Amino acid sequence: MARILTGIQSSGRPHLGNILGAIVPAIELSRNPENESFFFIADLHSLVSIKDGKLRHEYARAIAATWLAFGFDFEKNVFWRQSRIQEHTELAWYLNCFTPFPMLANATSFKEKSEKLADVNAGLFTYPVLQAADILLYNANIIPVGKDQKQHLEMTKDIATRFNLLAGEEMLTLPEPQIDERIMTIPGVDGQKMSKSYHNYIDIFVPENELKKAIKKIVSDSTPLEEPKDPETDITFKLYSLVASESEVAAMRQNYLNGGFGYGHAKQALLECMLEKFAEPRRIFNHYMENEQELEGILVAGETKARAIAQETIGKVRKVLGYSS
Amino acid sequence: MARILTGIQSSGRPHLGNILGAIVPAIELSRNPENESFFFIADLHSLVSIKDGKLRHEYARAIAATWLAFGFDFEKNVFWRQSRIQEHTELAWYLNCFTPFPMLANATSFKEKSEKLADVNAGLFTYPVLQAADILLYNANIIPVGKDQKQHLEMTKDIATRFNLLAGEEMLTLPEPQIDERIMTIPGVDGQKMSKSYHNYIDIFVPENELKKAIKKIVSDSTPLEEPKDPETDITFKLYSLVASESEVAAMRQNYLNGGFGYGHAKQALLECMLEKFAEPRRIFNHYMENEQELEGILVAGETKARAIAQETIGKVRKVLGYSS
Repeated sequence: MARILTGIQSSGRPHLGNILGAIVPAIELSRNPENESFFFIADLHSLVSIKDGKLRHEYARAIAATWLAFGFDFEKNVFWRQSRIQEHTELAWYLNCFTPFPMLANATSFKEKSEKLADVNAGLFTYPVLQAADILLYNANIIPVGKDQKQHLEMTKDIATRFNLLAGEEMLTLPEPQIDERIMTIPGVDGQKMSKSYHNYIDIFVPENELKKAIKKIVSDSTPLEEPKDPETDITFKLYSLVASESEVAAMRQNYLNGGFGYGHAKQALLECMLEKFAEPRRIFNHYMENEQELEGILVAGETKARAIAQETIGKVRKVLGYSS
Repeated sequence: MARILTGIQSSGRPHLGNILGAIVPAIELSRNPENESFFFIADLHSLVSIKDGKLRHEYARAIAATWLAFGFDFEKNVFWRQSRIQEHTELAWYLNCFTPFPMLANATSFKEKSEKLADVNAGLFTYPVLQAADILLYNANIIPVGKDQKQHLEMTKDIATRFNLLAGEEMLTLPEPQIDERIMTIPGVDGQKMSKSYHNYIDIFVPENELKKAIKKIVSDSTPLEEPKDPETDITFKLYSLVASESEVAAMRQNYLNGGFGYGHAKQALLECMLEKFAEPRRIFNHYMENEQELEGILVAGETKARAIAQETIGKVRKVLGYSS
């Protein structure tokens, strides 16, 4: 049985791109009975860039509610907020002392971000060490990562190897990356990758009139209504094909090719399709956002499971380092 | 009432230089009823340079036993092992995100040490941030520091100010350094400052024959026994004058000036003086080193007091940052 661990960025309320590109595939993966899925909201990491506490609290709730809305099984799997398990930061300090300074200074991600960002803080610099702690605390075997995160995972293995050398045994499990080349890129309303930072995202949990407004903003070309249109290049069609059923997509393709079917019609179809397909997730999401205590209870139960594992690991690490009585 | 906080380096078993130069003066300061003394063993910081867990455990016990041996009041004051309060590393992570990377990169101490040391790790780099957490967790007002630590304290104030700006109030207390220009330098057996790293120290807790051997190693000039000797330049005399009473020192000075009194005599007198003056500390130290559970009980009681204060601070900080439920 493989233990798959994923940290969920908590820099915003999940949008359609996050849902179709990451959350739904991860939930499908978690249904495989041969895997154990460990998912956590990386709300400690988010402090590197987000200082607003109200936003962070809100985002963490919205993320948990989204996972629940799409059917993630919180009982079978382990789901927690990173900030609720003190062992993350404790282990991160220990691992700092096993991390060569030049390894962090030469990390590609740090070099790139420190050139772009106004706030280059020590959290950004030691980010990969906290990430290593996240992974190593739970003896995770497999870490699904994008290509840009491969170097950080190499660091985790390097740091763990240095610690294990001192421990005299393979105390910390060396994780393996699982690089998914097929990761779906969901287009935003302007055709670029849908992203919070590009302001081109669609939030599927907003009321119907707001969702309609968001869909209206999808960019299209100026082909007149009566002419045939190219489904391959149109953004509305791409989004429709990600949400609708196969037969619906085939019918829509025909509408495009036939002509006499405008982008306004296509957008109306997309809205109706989303409202129908996401009716249940929208209901569940709103239920948990309105019932904070119920959501909190689910999270706390997950954190109790996570903490037990984290404490077992930290207990062994403390012993090696001379921190137990 | 001022709250004075000091972190005790735990890179070795305390020697005569630590005792006379730091521990005894700090204990005297702690007797002032107008002060609250907060002392902790900085055993998380020690991981930057010491990886051996058995040594770290041993050193922490020896440090606590030394403070007890010299009469530190563990009930009136607060005394704890840094590693036992998880809030230190938790706050350190938060503060990392409020610490500009260049501030750490330009720190004099880091630049100096990174040129000298073979193991330049991320712990060495973020050392001042953990130090800031140590201070700010306990709302300490006054931090007695050597001149070389003044820059780190400026960093603590800078980091706290950035956090307080976000909090919208003076949530974290800005500490003030108390730079003691008079700090006594205790000579080692070779006349340089007594230091573990110079291997010139005297451990006063070893059995009598070992103590005698250590004292024999004190360097002296080659003035023949019958000739007068200069007390001002002799190391044995300097050490004797730090341990003996005023009248004993006056008599010893006369012996030196009279001649017919050899360095061997002086060393024998120093040995006897130390055995007499440190009889009680030696007995108490050995008692606690042999009764590990009793010592542990005293430490745990201190940690309970420290933890209550640390948790109060971290609770407020979490609220600002959006980490409370």
